Amino acid sequence: MASRIAKDIEGERAILEKCKEFMSAPVTDIEVLQQRKEDMSTRMEMLIMETQAAFCRALEEVDGGKFKVDRWQRKEGGGGISCVLQDGKVFEKAGVNVSVVYGSLTEEAAKQMRSRGKVLKGKDGKLPFRAMGVSSVIHPHNPHIPTVHFNYRYFEIEEEDGSKQWWFGGGTDLTPVYINQDDAAHFHGTLKEACDKHHAQYYPDFKKWCDRYFYVRHRDETRGIGGIFFDDLDGPSQEEAFGFVRSCAQTVVPCYVPIVRKHLSDSFTAAEKEWQQVRRGRYVEFNLVYDRGVKFGLATPGSRIESILMSLPLTARWEYMHEPPKGSREAEMLEVLRNPKDWV
Amino acid sequence: MASRIAKDIEGERAILEKCKEFMSAPVTDIEVLQQRKEDMSTRMEMLIMETQAAFCRALEEVDGGKFKVDRWQRKEGGGGISCVLQDGKVFEKAGVNVSVVYGSLTEEAAKQMRSRGKVLKGKDGKLPFRAMGVSSVIHPHNPHIPTVHFNYRYFEIEEEDGSKQWWFGGGTDLTPVYINQDDAAHFHGTLKEACDKHHAQYYPDFKKWCDRYFYVRHRDETRGIGGIFFDDLDGPSQEEAFGFVRSCAQTVVPCYVPIVRKHLSDSFTAAEKEWQQVRRGRYVEFNLVYDRGVKFGLATPGSRIESILMSLPLTARWEYMHEPPKGSREAEMLEVLRNPKDWV
Repeated sequence: MASRIAKDIEGERAILEKCKEFMSAPVTDIEVLQQRKEDMSTRMEMLIMETQAAFCRALEEVDGGKFKVDRWQRKEGGGGISCVLQDGKVFEKAGVNVSVVYGSLTEEAAKQMRSRGKVLKGKDGKLPFRAMGVSSVIHPHNPHIPTVHFNYRYFEIEEEDGSKQWWFGGGTDLTPVYINQDDAAHFHGTLKEACDKHHAQYYPDFKKWCDRYFYVRHRDETRGIGGIFFDDLDGPSQEEAFGFVRSCAQTVVPCYVPIVRKHLSDSFTAAEKEWQQVRRGRYVEFNLVYDRGVKFGLATPGSRIESILMSLPLTARWEYMHEPPKGSREAEMLEVLRNPKDWV
Repeated sequence: MASRIAKDIEGERAILEKCKEFMSAPVTDIEVLQQRKEDMSTRMEMLIMETQAAFCRALEEVDGGKFKVDRWQRKEGGGGISCVLQDGKVFEKAGVNVSVVYGSLTEEAAKQMRSRGKVLKGKDGKLPFRAMGVSSVIHPHNPHIPTVHFNYRYFEIEEEDGSKQWWFGGGTDLTPVYINQDDAAHFHGTLKEACDKHHAQYYPDFKKWCDRYFYVRHRDETRGIGGIFFDDLDGPSQEEAFGFVRSCAQTVVPCYVPIVRKHLSDSFTAAEKEWQQVRRGRYVEFNLVYDRGVKFGLATPGSRIESILMSLPLTARWEYMHEPPKGSREAEMLEVLRNPKDWV
């Protein structure tokens, strides 16, 4: 009994200590997190806050600038913390967002939440839910430094009989302006290593899923060179699924920051900068036309538009009939976007 | 009989003469147009080609540059003529597009074509259709010259029993970066005058429809200061509906070109240019997230993506949490976009 109390106090202190390192106080009151410290929703909220802080600090160190931190509340329940570094030395626009929202969903909305569209029964058609995640998009100035995106999320929903459905989703993917074989191998290799610790099929399956998800149909191109993407992950156990998501979230810095550092001083031409701007236009096309998260966010009452559209680049360009000359490095990039490759 | 033949020959010559003034040969063979010169589809194809030519010539005269003319074919039937002037002296990107397409639609697709969603019965579920239109978006460099958009279209579809359903749609609307009362009054006044010749309710009804259509829900703003918008126009007679559409199409030059000329030499600051870029970002948001024509185009097999996305500006910008200071001219613009006004 005494050791149980001691362990509880230790756990509560650990939460308090961790919170001091975050970009802001977490969305949920620290006392509530301490009381429910064993709950998956608490553990996940701590993980997304840690991920946000680790990624922001690593980028600040590279850039020299500071993230602007906005803490916002959602009228319908919950809120978020948006960190944005705009017009920095290295980053044109870097956004790292955490949100923790709750409330109740209609059965129709609940169905749309899952990519498999499973039917869930609610009490009087309403389902209490809790959703949280960390998401980020980083657009650097230098066209030799790729754009990165990641998102890790957890969802739980209560059915009529009181049972809880839960699942995780997420992924990390890279959008270079020019192909760099070593960068691609490093990025995918780091992800594969994290995946392989959990299941041999995770990397190959989630790599394919990523290429499918980030496909811009009207251009017949993928958005970038992929990475991993998964959704509806509800096994083998909640503990193991969380362990996998934690491994993924902990790779965002080692996946990306070494690539940024490597190219910090790369020189570039006006033509290379222009090609980056054209590719940024394509990024906007994917995000506004296809991305499920953006579509869902824009259509959801009470969502914070500025946090959803934080993913859009500071600048973009649409040139009529832009087609790079054959054999150019720009054409090489397009070739890869039209025929996704294996990188590891 | 002799006079009938003489009149026919005269009509055929008139078509031939008019075609010489177009930006390119029309989509339909000139001989076919001559044979079917009384058909509404011929008269409308001539009107959209004339409108394209008149607008392009007027803009070339202002800019000093020349439109690049692309003639393209649609595998499934028909084709189009895209005219683009990019990076001109006055215009950053100016696109004027004609398309004439035909083939057969499923009943579901036919239903989506009409904004009222009327159910049409096809032979074995298929409906032969013919659709044509002229559409244009002009993005100038100078933030004191507004962006303009117009589109005039005609649609016909054959039902199971051989009867033809037809309707017209269209509109012209203005998207300034700063409010200029005189420009707005000139633009709306010119449209109202064209409408009033046909029906006293057209301008007030289609002005309201325009404000509703170009509403960006997630921003709670309209795209610009409106103009007119209508769809499903199938009366009072085909002749009268066509007469109205012709009047509208003939106003595109007098609506817009005087405004361009007036502001040609207006000086502007870097801050004004940046506000223009932010507004361009919103333009992209409307076009990619809400515009029915773009959505339909991107989802339609065989459509020409470059012609559909011609409407996107050459450059755009997304600033996190951009909010103009109170009392500024930028705030005045936002105020109007949030509360559409009457201009005439």
